[in-house]
Amino acid sequence: MNMYDLILRKREGGTIDTKEMYDMIVDYTNGRIPDYQMSAFLMAVYFKGLSDPETLDMTTAMAYSGEVLDLSDVGGVTADKHSTGGVGDKTSLVLAPLVASCGIKVAKMSGRGLGHTGGTIDKLESIPGFHTELSMDEFKDNVRNHGIALMGQSAKIAPADKLLYALRDVTATVDNISLIAASIMSKKIAAGTDLIVLDVKTGSGAFMKKYEDSMELATKMAWLGKRAGKKVEYVISDMDQPLGNMVGNALEVKEAIDTLNGKGPDDLKQLCITLGGLMLTGTGFAKDMDEAADMLNDAIDSGRAIGKFKEFIKAQGGLPEAIDNPEMLPESTLIEPLYATQSGYIKHMDCEKVGLACLALGGGRFTKESVIDLSVGIELKKKVSDEVKEGDVLAYLYANDKEKLEDAREKLMEVYEYSATPVEKPELIKFISRD
Amino acid sequence: MNMYDLILRKREGGTIDTKEMYDMIVDYTNGRIPDYQMSAFLMAVYFKGLSDPETLDMTTAMAYSGEVLDLSDVGGVTADKHSTGGVGDKTSLVLAPLVASCGIKVAKMSGRGLGHTGGTIDKLESIPGFHTELSMDEFKDNVRNHGIALMGQSAKIAPADKLLYALRDVTATVDNISLIAASIMSKKIAAGTDLIVLDVKTGSGAFMKKYEDSMELATKMAWLGKRAGKKVEYVISDMDQPLGNMVGNALEVKEAIDTLNGKGPDDLKQLCITLGGLMLTGTGFAKDMDEAADMLNDAIDSGRAIGKFKEFIKAQGGLPEAIDNPEMLPESTLIEPLYATQSGYIKHMDCEKVGLACLALGGGRFTKESVIDLSVGIELKKKVSDEVKEGDVLAYLYANDKEKLEDAREKLMEVYEYSATPVEKPELIKFISRD
Repeated sequence: MNMYDLILRKREGGTIDTKEMYDMIVDYTNGRIPDYQMSAFLMAVYFKGLSDPETLDMTTAMAYSGEVLDLSDVGGVTADKHSTGGVGDKTSLVLAPLVASCGIKVAKMSGRGLGHTGGTIDKLESIPGFHTELSMDEFKDNVRNHGIALMGQSAKIAPADKLLYALRDVTATVDNISLIAASIMSKKIAAGTDLIVLDVKTGSGAFMKKYEDSMELATKMAWLGKRAGKKVEYVISDMDQPLGNMVGNALEVKEAIDTLNGKGPDDLKQLCITLGGLMLTGTGFAKDMDEAADMLNDAIDSGRAIGKFKEFIKAQGGLPEAIDNPEMLPESTLIEPLYATQSGYIKHMDCEKVGLACLALGGGRFTKESVIDLSVGIELKKKVSDEVKEGDVLAYLYANDKEKLEDAREKLMEVYEYSATPVEKPELIKFISRD
Repeated sequence: MNMYDLILRKREGGTIDTKEMYDMIVDYTNGRIPDYQMSAFLMAVYFKGLSDPETLDMTTAMAYSGEVLDLSDVGGVTADKHSTGGVGDKTSLVLAPLVASCGIKVAKMSGRGLGHTGGTIDKLESIPGFHTELSMDEFKDNVRNHGIALMGQSAKIAPADKLLYALRDVTATVDNISLIAASIMSKKIAAGTDLIVLDVKTGSGAFMKKYEDSMELATKMAWLGKRAGKKVEYVISDMDQPLGNMVGNALEVKEAIDTLNGKGPDDLKQLCITLGGLMLTGTGFAKDMDEAADMLNDAIDSGRAIGKFKEFIKAQGGLPEAIDNPEMLPESTLIEPLYATQSGYIKHMDCEKVGLACLALGGGRFTKESVIDLSVGIELKKKVSDEVKEGDVLAYLYANDKEKLEDAREKLMEVYEYSATPVEKPELIKFISRD
């Protein structure tokens, strides 16, 4: 295997065979191929693409570049959910305890947020004491004993992906569907769960802005997972506006707690019931989506879901009292309204800009080194299709710094587009996979 | 200037402005931009191209990334010739003393050979004692006193190009006409001569196989040179068969000596008279190409040209006696004929393969670290359009190693294509620039 030849061949639109792809990933992971050759290869891939077999080879090679978790000894059917990321997306916080309370073993590895989208771990760290630094044994023990555990992406899992992603991130070679699919699925395959449920976002706040691209990514990921022997289900869901009403770490935890208590916003609940339905039917816990919905609603209504959440938080060092008393979570010192400057119906929201406004408040990371202010964020009072009158409160800004607040307010002002006539409510769930 | 943004913009087909290009080249040269970002940028350039203004900016930025020679104090009009490289191309060995003997100051920086094409410095090192390790002062002194000097590419000249070329060489980003033109012209501009004459080769032994590509490269280089304030002339010449009859370092020096003595092959002489004509007319030494040809022929016939060659060799430590006694140059121990296996007319020669046969004999470099056997090579007895009878000697192989000889013989066997009917002699000079 000569890396120069592989770069040249890909540049000319040729094919990398299985052995070459494996050797390339192994050699790169071990430092035998320099970054400057890999980045040239990745840029050639950007222009010439990877075939499905090449993408599968890359995925599998990355998945097996480190440890592949064996969860067979946790005693039950394991499942994981992955979202491609969005604004206000606190689904994991609700979904994980919800399906765990129905008997599924949830073994989840998660990331931190970067840019305009938040990360599950950051959000949960709003809860005093909660941490995700578990050893692999503690992680598996928690899954076995509590049916739920969450840890940060281990350095031992898919190290090739970690290196490649860091390189793509600084060489403008992130946005290629094959590379994205391979990156996500290599980690999910290495994480060892029986079932993988994917929530692929689409719209102005998503990585994929167009439905067709989201569908292409979803089907590619599902194909890759299945070829690697996994059960995979997926949903394509709307990210043309934030999910739920809260954006910001502690604020999203509060909304997740509300939802687990049966008092959350409709869209968040609907998405959790749908994804939960795929998890229950995909693992054989429910015979169809209707039965699954009944089981999930019952878990919420009976208090089992919120109870599982508390158990989970406690098992990872968090203060379970904070779940009953959300005022114990970090709170901002300033809360200021944003008023509508005209009357009409909200026709469109620039969802990414909502995320950027939260970032401006200090609620996200500009770079990997940024320190997050967990208390800040945005509470949306109006969303797409809502009627507003001039002077109505569109949103509240939660801040700790006057200057940042004004910066965020300016950004948030640009989020809304109005229509004089009524606007239809956008569909949240755009596609559900069926085997 | 953010390198990520430049990669992304070029990937999307956008334009890099002058300041950005300068900053990028300066920062890269100083190690502030990592190789992995530059190689991704270069691959994006491969797919999206550089506009003419971008190419000019890159050329100038690279030219001024190090020292730019000031030759104004050598006392005369200076000129340089650059060839894009070919098999058996010993033009510089003849042309430099020839035009120097007519009064032009020849200040030439040259490279070593790599792959199937030879380098002027390697060839001249066949002459006992000759060396090109001159300080900048010695170099200029020699130009001033002898009208001719040759040195290796100084590390101080266009260091950005040196770094970029090394990176392109290992990332499959060499073969882009803008990058090639910028690389060559940055060095030529920094080398400080008044006139630059370019010999762009075309055909099976050239880097550019197609005439149109050679023409595009030539006009681009001429445009770049002129925009940088240089006088530029060019020729497009045939490299569908080797130039002259000798291929190999000492063998080529012998053929150059023959040519300076008026006894060389017609094609080599014709090319030298043409390029020399452009140099003499371009510097005002001759009013037109006819007058220039008369001056050049007279320099050969009178012995002034070969005298200048001896003066040049002596000035750089070489044994001038070797010019009169070429048997003092390295000679191989084995000389074996290659016989024609059929009768007919030679219709085509795979020129690159002749170079590879010489490489197989040990006469070239596979890698930058290879040590060259200066004595080996190939003497062609038949070229395109020649009639041959089965059993005629097509060529002689000069070797020092039986195994290498057989390897080279096999390669050389594959060089020739025959025709049953007469074949026209290919035109050597395909285009001559006119201002």
